[in-house]
Parts: sequence; structure tokens; C-alpha cells
Amino acid sequence: MQSLLKPFLGVVLAVGVAGAAHAQAPFAKAENAIKYRQSAMFIMAQHFGRLGPVVKGERPYNKDEVAKNTAIAAEMSKLPWEGFVAGTDKGETSAKPEIWTDAAKFKSAAEKMQQEMEKLAQVAKGGDLNAIKAQFGATGKACKTCHDDFKKKD
Amino acid sequence: MQSLLKPFLGVVLAVGVAGAAHAQAPFAKAENAIKYRQSAMFIMAQHFGRLGPVVKGERPYNKDEVAKNTAIAAEMSKLPWEGFVAGTDKGETSAKPEIWTDAAKFKSAAEKMQQEMEKLAQVAKGGDLNAIKAQFGATGKACKTCHDDFKKKD
Repeated sequence: MQSLLKPFLGVVLAVGVAGAAHAQAPFAKAENAIKYRQSAMFIMAQHFGRLGPVVKGERPYNKDEVAKNTAIAAEMSKLPWEGFVAGTDKGETSAKPEIWTDAAKFKSAAEKMQQEMEKLAQVAKGGDLNAIKAQFGATGKACKTCHDDFKKKD
Repeated sequence: MQSLLKPFLGVVLAVGVAGAAHAQAPFAKAENAIKYRQSAMFIMAQHFGRLGPVVKGERPYNKDEVAKNTAIAAEMSKLPWEGFVAGTDKGETSAKPEIWTDAAKFKSAAEKMQQEMEKLAQVAKGGDLNAIKAQFGATGKACKTCHDDFKKKD
């Protein structure tokens, strides 16, 4: 609990310089911003990825299961962006500097992904597996487009 | 994208033994289950923690900001539990074995935290800072109680 109660916003205000080793509002430190966006991406990928076997016919289609996974993925898709604060292209990250040097393009690609993920969640509610398959592909493409431009290869 | 499309549930079904090094449904591998629960806890803690300075009067109270942070924290509070699959007390984790040996108590403590976090989100919508302060304390207590019993000290 102690770590949760740290007055980190106070720390942010006390630090006047930007940089990977320094505090990054609303995060106590740059590592937290990086960990935050990676955590959100990881959870989203876990839930989105569960559709893979269903779409490929390797796992039976269950409407509620797919609806739940896509709803969580859509919620998670809204979160990572706050973590891309200036100066966090250093450290344990695969973020390319273009995220900050070509910020408008990054924003557009990030919004496209959120839209597709939200559309997937809506389609999943409908229960039409063929429509889900098509939208799963469209959503995956939006993930890939953004990764190609803004994420270093592992 | 490739990693998202792995037919990991097929892998799970092909693996007959439980253990930290093996696959753990619905996760492709035990590390993913651990990373999943840690990611959800981390995001929750970031948003819950932002209330600290507000509650202590170190940061001005902003109703919308607090409502948003508590809503995200409440949503995140529902996620980690799926990640506590059998055999994942080994590896990069602070999980105590009691999570599995005293599963009923763990479930109860986890549910208590979710209830308190949801209550906090509801109270935050009301905009009464004193009520938020009280419920922030009650929620933090639920976090701490569960950590004391089920999480190793860092």
C-alpha cells in the first residue's frame, strides 16, 4: 500500500526537467509511464488474441466469451496513450522516436486502432461469426499498421 | 501481430501437466498469467494512487478527474483473478502459496477489494470529497488486508 499512497504528483511538480530518468506527469517516474502503456497493451493483446483460435476454427465459437473478451480489449485500447509521455523513448521500451517526432500520425494510428477495437466489440455483441472474423482481421491490421511504424521489432 | 495470432489454446490442450514452466489456460504460458495479473494490478494502482494527493489536500480536487480514475480502477479490479492459475506461485511473482492453499479466503479478500473499489467509483460520481476520502481509506484497507495475507513483501 505504501507505494500507492506516495504523493507522486507533488514529486512531478518539483521536478523541472523532462527525461527518462525523471518524473513524468501523471506518472511518478518514466519507468511507470512505460510500464503503464505496456501493461495496457499486454492485457488488450491477451483478450484480443483469444479470438485467434475461434476465428481459425480451432476453438468452438462462444458468443458470451467472445463478447466479453472484445469488450475488455476495447476498454483497454483507450488506456495506453497517456503513457507515451515525452522523454520515454529511452529505457525498457520498443517505442520508436517517431511516436514523438510524428505525433499526429501516431495519434491517428492509435485512434484508428481504438475505433476498430470498439467496432469489434460491437460486432461481437451481434453474434455473427463471419462478421466477427472480418472485423478481427480489420482490427489486427490496425494493430499491425501502428506497430510497423511506431514499434521496434523485438 | 504474429504473437497475437498464436493458437495458444491449442497449445494449452496439448500440455497435460501443470507447472510454472507449462501452459496455463486461458494463457499460453505461466509467465503470461503472472504478467497479466501484475499488469492489471499495476494499472489499477496507478489510477487509485492518483487520489492520494487529492485526499491529502496536496492537489486540488477535480470531480471529473477523480471519477475517471476511480472508474478505471474499478474496472481493472475485476481482471487480475483469472491470472492466478494453479502452478503460478513460482517465477517472477510475489504471490504467496496461500492464494492456492487458502483459496476461499483469497477469493473473499479479492471480492472485498472489488466491492470497495466499485463503491469508491460510485462515491466519486457523487462529488462529495469527504465521502471520497472515507471510501478511499476503506478501499486502501481492503488492498492492504489482501496484500498482508497473500503477497510477499518486496
